[in-house]
Amino acid sequence: MPSVLIVGADAARYFELLQARQLPSAQLSCLPDASTPSSDCGEVEVILGPPDAVAALLPHCPDVRWAQSSWAGVTPLVESGRQNYQLTGLKGVFGEVMSEYVLGWLLAFERNILERARSMVWDNKSDPGLAGKTLGVMGTGSIGQAVATAVQAFGVSVRGLNSSGKAVAPFEACYATDDALEFAQGLDFLLALLPDLPATTGLVNAQLLNALRPGAIFINAGRANCVDDDAVISALEDRRLRAAVLDVVHTEPLPANDRLWQVENLYITSHTAAPTPDAAVIEVFADNYHRYIAGEPLQHVIDFARGY
Amino acid sequence: MPSVLIVGADAARYFELLQARQLPSAQLSCLPDASTPSSDCGEVEVILGPPDAVAALLPHCPDVRWAQSSWAGVTPLVESGRQNYQLTGLKGVFGEVMSEYVLGWLLAFERNILERARSMVWDNKSDPGLAGKTLGVMGTGSIGQAVATAVQAFGVSVRGLNSSGKAVAPFEACYATDDALEFAQGLDFLLALLPDLPATTGLVNAQLLNALRPGAIFINAGRANCVDDDAVISALEDRRLRAAVLDVVHTEPLPANDRLWQVENLYITSHTAAPTPDAAVIEVFADNYHRYIAGEPLQHVIDFARGY
Repeated sequence: MPSVLIVGADAARYFELLQARQLPSAQLSCLPDASTPSSDCGEVEVILGPPDAVAALLPHCPDVRWAQSSWAGVTPLVESGRQNYQLTGLKGVFGEVMSEYVLGWLLAFERNILERARSMVWDNKSDPGLAGKTLGVMGTGSIGQAVATAVQAFGVSVRGLNSSGKAVAPFEACYATDDALEFAQGLDFLLALLPDLPATTGLVNAQLLNALRPGAIFINAGRANCVDDDAVISALEDRRLRAAVLDVVHTEPLPANDRLWQVENLYITSHTAAPTPDAAVIEVFADNYHRYIAGEPLQHVIDFARGY
Repeated sequence: MPSVLIVGADAARYFELLQARQLPSAQLSCLPDASTPSSDCGEVEVILGPPDAVAALLPHCPDVRWAQSSWAGVTPLVESGRQNYQLTGLKGVFGEVMSEYVLGWLLAFERNILERARSMVWDNKSDPGLAGKTLGVMGTGSIGQAVATAVQAFGVSVRGLNSSGKAVAPFEACYATDDALEFAQGLDFLLALLPDLPATTGLVNAQLLNALRPGAIFINAGRANCVDDDAVISALEDRRLRAAVLDVVHTEPLPANDRLWQVENLYITSHTAAPTPDAAVIEVFADNYHRYIAGEPLQHVIDFARGY
């Protein structure tokens, strides 16, 4: 009967949802504040929670064999160094909401929705629209694939960027990180969906932004480390970028006096692009729990060396 | 060698595009201003142009056997009374741009894009999103079908309304005009894509709007005659409607002093929802021209009795 600990701010809610699922032979407990480990931690075999809380607790849980992250990003656990357990990520649950976010913002610009919402005069000049444009997606995992499929339905061509440049469906072409400039050449839209890793830090720099089509749109809905803020601000000021939408920023929550709030055509969406649906966390955990009990391979196992 | 006349403001552009296509044995001419018919009109056998220009010219063209409309709506020709020729509409070309428009506005509301674009403070409460909502589409033709498919990809359920209530894919249920209240019951989103006909006039009235879910969103991207403006304004003022987006209005262009510009949460998009792509007009006309020459049935023939 494995001892399962649920940690983090959402622990009580997850606890309730998991109790309702009646997981076979699980002994569930709940620790909302990871900074106050209980004496039972020594017996914990399975942890479910956000990577930062799990990372804080791990030193007190020597017998952990499996941790399920409740976030897509797992950087705090990759960086903690410990590797004698299986870490599984949360995948396959963000595609639909992320597609809403990306399409919503692209259409807000390309169908002039922001302007038309304010307009008080008749203006029947046609909007540019999406058809025939090209989107480049940095990060070709399940979220990027879902976004690519969603925008292709509107006549948008989609390129992908990943570490090796390996072909991934439904991207029409994939480029390796080393060929990022070639990837960026002439793009109408650039979308970053990258994990927070040393290899992704600063990838969206002045050179890359210069390679885009003049008047391009940049959206970052992954992690903030890939972006050189100065380069984005300067490209916006020079009108080389028409707009930038940042869901993630260097400091969250972004202080009210941060310069980013003041930059024209820069939109900050407060890390709301793809919120984690509770039901999806529970679904992924329960599915993996049944595999764990049965001794089967878990889904979405993180490779500590790659970091994702 | 049929004499083909291209009329209306876009005539010169269409003329050029059709010349490049080298239609077999066509004798093309071009009349940008339909109010000044030329003496050759008596020989015209085929007309291409917007329905209002074609209707103005028809009395001068006794030998017309086929008219291709360059618009989706054909009301001016249906109302002209003459029926001794084949009238073909422009269909199958608006689905993608109309889907952009509808999704763009729904996401602007449900992902709070209009608010986030203005925001200067961190606000990470989750947006409602589209999944699980229900859209009702008045008009189940090719445009409505395309919109239905587009929003279903985001987890939206879609009902359709048409004159007879006959089932049409991909709508999950279809209702007859007589059952409009049942159709509207509890809808999160109402989209009107109706032709301008006596039977559609005033369908979107106070009773229908009252049947929607409180806080629903109404979009009219068909023709203006279906909407009771007073009912929409009153529903917006009472907050029974969260927002209304009108692409079409009773007078176009809408005068700057019209009361509609002043209504809170009412958005006017100046008849830009689904502009006619030149290339599509040419494609549809050229395809039908080849059928005409070969004596085959034309595509998208309008039934004068139904009016669409």
